[in-house]
Amino acid sequence: MNETAHLTFDLDTPGVNKGHLVVPGGADCEVLSLPVFSLNKGKGPRLLITGGCHGNELQGPIVARRIIEWLPEVQACGRVIILPVLNPLAVQAWTRNTPIDGLNLNRVFPGRAEGSVTERIADAVSRLLLPMADTIFDLHSFGPRWDFPPATTTHPIADADLMAETVKMAEAFKLPMTLVWEYDDTPGMFDIEAQNQGKVFICAEFGGGTVGAEDLAIYEAGVRNGLIALGLVEGTAEYPTFRQHKSRQTLETHLADQLKSPVTAIFEPRRSVLDEVNKGDLLGLLHPMESLSARSIEIRAPVTSIVCAIASGAHVNADEGIVFLARPLKR
Amino acid sequence: MNETAHLTFDLDTPGVNKGHLVVPGGADCEVLSLPVFSLNKGKGPRLLITGGCHGNELQGPIVARRIIEWLPEVQACGRVIILPVLNPLAVQAWTRNTPIDGLNLNRVFPGRAEGSVTERIADAVSRLLLPMADTIFDLHSFGPRWDFPPATTTHPIADADLMAETVKMAEAFKLPMTLVWEYDDTPGMFDIEAQNQGKVFICAEFGGGTVGAEDLAIYEAGVRNGLIALGLVEGTAEYPTFRQHKSRQTLETHLADQLKSPVTAIFEPRRSVLDEVNKGDLLGLLHPMESLSARSIEIRAPVTSIVCAIASGAHVNADEGIVFLARPLKR
Repeated sequence: MNETAHLTFDLDTPGVNKGHLVVPGGADCEVLSLPVFSLNKGKGPRLLITGGCHGNELQGPIVARRIIEWLPEVQACGRVIILPVLNPLAVQAWTRNTPIDGLNLNRVFPGRAEGSVTERIADAVSRLLLPMADTIFDLHSFGPRWDFPPATTTHPIADADLMAETVKMAEAFKLPMTLVWEYDDTPGMFDIEAQNQGKVFICAEFGGGTVGAEDLAIYEAGVRNGLIALGLVEGTAEYPTFRQHKSRQTLETHLADQLKSPVTAIFEPRRSVLDEVNKGDLLGLLHPMESLSARSIEIRAPVTSIVCAIASGAHVNADEGIVFLARPLKR
Repeated sequence: MNETAHLTFDLDTPGVNKGHLVVPGGADCEVLSLPVFSLNKGKGPRLLITGGCHGNELQGPIVARRIIEWLPEVQACGRVIILPVLNPLAVQAWTRNTPIDGLNLNRVFPGRAEGSVTERIADAVSRLLLPMADTIFDLHSFGPRWDFPPATTTHPIADADLMAETVKMAEAFKLPMTLVWEYDDTPGMFDIEAQNQGKVFICAEFGGGTVGAEDLAIYEAGVRNGLIALGLVEGTAEYPTFRQHKSRQTLETHLADQLKSPVTAIFEPRRSVLDEVNKGDLLGLLHPMESLSARSIEIRAPVTSIVCAIASGAHVNADEGIVFLARPLKR
């Protein structure tokens, strides 16, 4: 008989606590013990910070560890729970999905206690941690095969008040981009589960395959700004500089703004993230691999817009996304 | 009966030629046809440019394609052969090694005509293309889980004259770093095979998982500088700017300069490539994944040196490399 999902410590204990979220074992995998930090300073905002949902996006786990270092000295009130690595199996494998069951953790929420290991992780988080927070910061990176600026994102939310509150919180990170991202109706996402419970859910993203010292500093500054805006930490927000720019903008991207590759080819990006492009501008080239006589396909901007994500140079399959365009958010 | 490895066109034909290097099929894989470009302008230097040896290093194939676009207008003499993708099976899979046989193409030279598919590719290149060139530019990127500056590299060569000629050619790319890289004695590398035949072999590297437009422009400028230095192209060399710096330096890294992780952990880089560091400076942290109470391990510089490569933030195994240090080349 497996034990049930549980925390090894009481989140209501005042002060700093470190322990584990225990995810029961099953036929596919032994018990997992996910390290959890909490800092309880009594009344105030209740925040949950998570990272490592996708195992090839390590910005989140590292920034979460850095916050754990300095938070005890500066947290003024409320409670912060930090789970740096949601999916250790995927992190160890440097894969988006869990190798054991092939599932994407961000597609199986709220999970199943009797499901496969990815579903059991989602279940434990949904039942034991999510109810303990009113705000969630989930730290992603958009994946290693994309270029994506330091950003906070949200999907559109039907509840107008929650939407406004979420965008305001996302903008408080003061990162170069705040993005409202229209998405295919995908069940099982962590944010949808949290929003259905009326919570403010902010997804931080900062793409690019290389996780470097300068990028981590930008990411960490954004999360610290979020903590300040919530009132958990006293201090002054910083505006991180990204590629020599200090600008900030709030954008929206629609389903039709996602350009997909019509063919299987090697994609060559010709523009960078946050570039403003006019209708007809060259965004990239698709080089067929079979022959050097075949013409490369030009990918041009269908509308005047801003590049919010562009695929890294790589082999892409037909119908795979290569560029996301965006425009200023209409409020 | 399989056909033997062959080219679909005659490299001695004047002018531009496009065709294929045919690699025979075997039990593991059908015939492969690798697109090849050649531009024969008669007497002069004979150069072979290759890319895509490792399938998750796409800078090379893209830059090779770009050179094919403009070379016909500017090549003044000699012959240039370009094979943008050495290993299409690995490129399609975005993997370092060939998925079918698990082999690293850069460890099986000169290959075997009767071997597995990776060995058959090496054999075809070794017998049909390598003899047609005196100089080779092999375009790599150091792999997507590293940060590595735009650079040319060579391993030390026993023949002092060939070594001097190789370093001079490498420096002619005018990239931020020229690196003489002491390496474990690894059989089967493409450069060793070429150097054993007395050829000048330059490996270009530019690490980082994200292949972006700005990085590709730097890489392309470096290769163009190499073509100018060889006398194949007339023009003026450009000094590419990398992360706001225009400096260039020639460094060497020894076996003892490669710092390895003593544990399995998440690596957090704290310094960037080309940073000068003093003995004792913090280079990065290794965070154990099992507990938040366990202390993170500090990785410090054992000597005053220059960071020439640093691992991207990611899960690393014990004994996996995390930092390469370097120092000015002693001539």
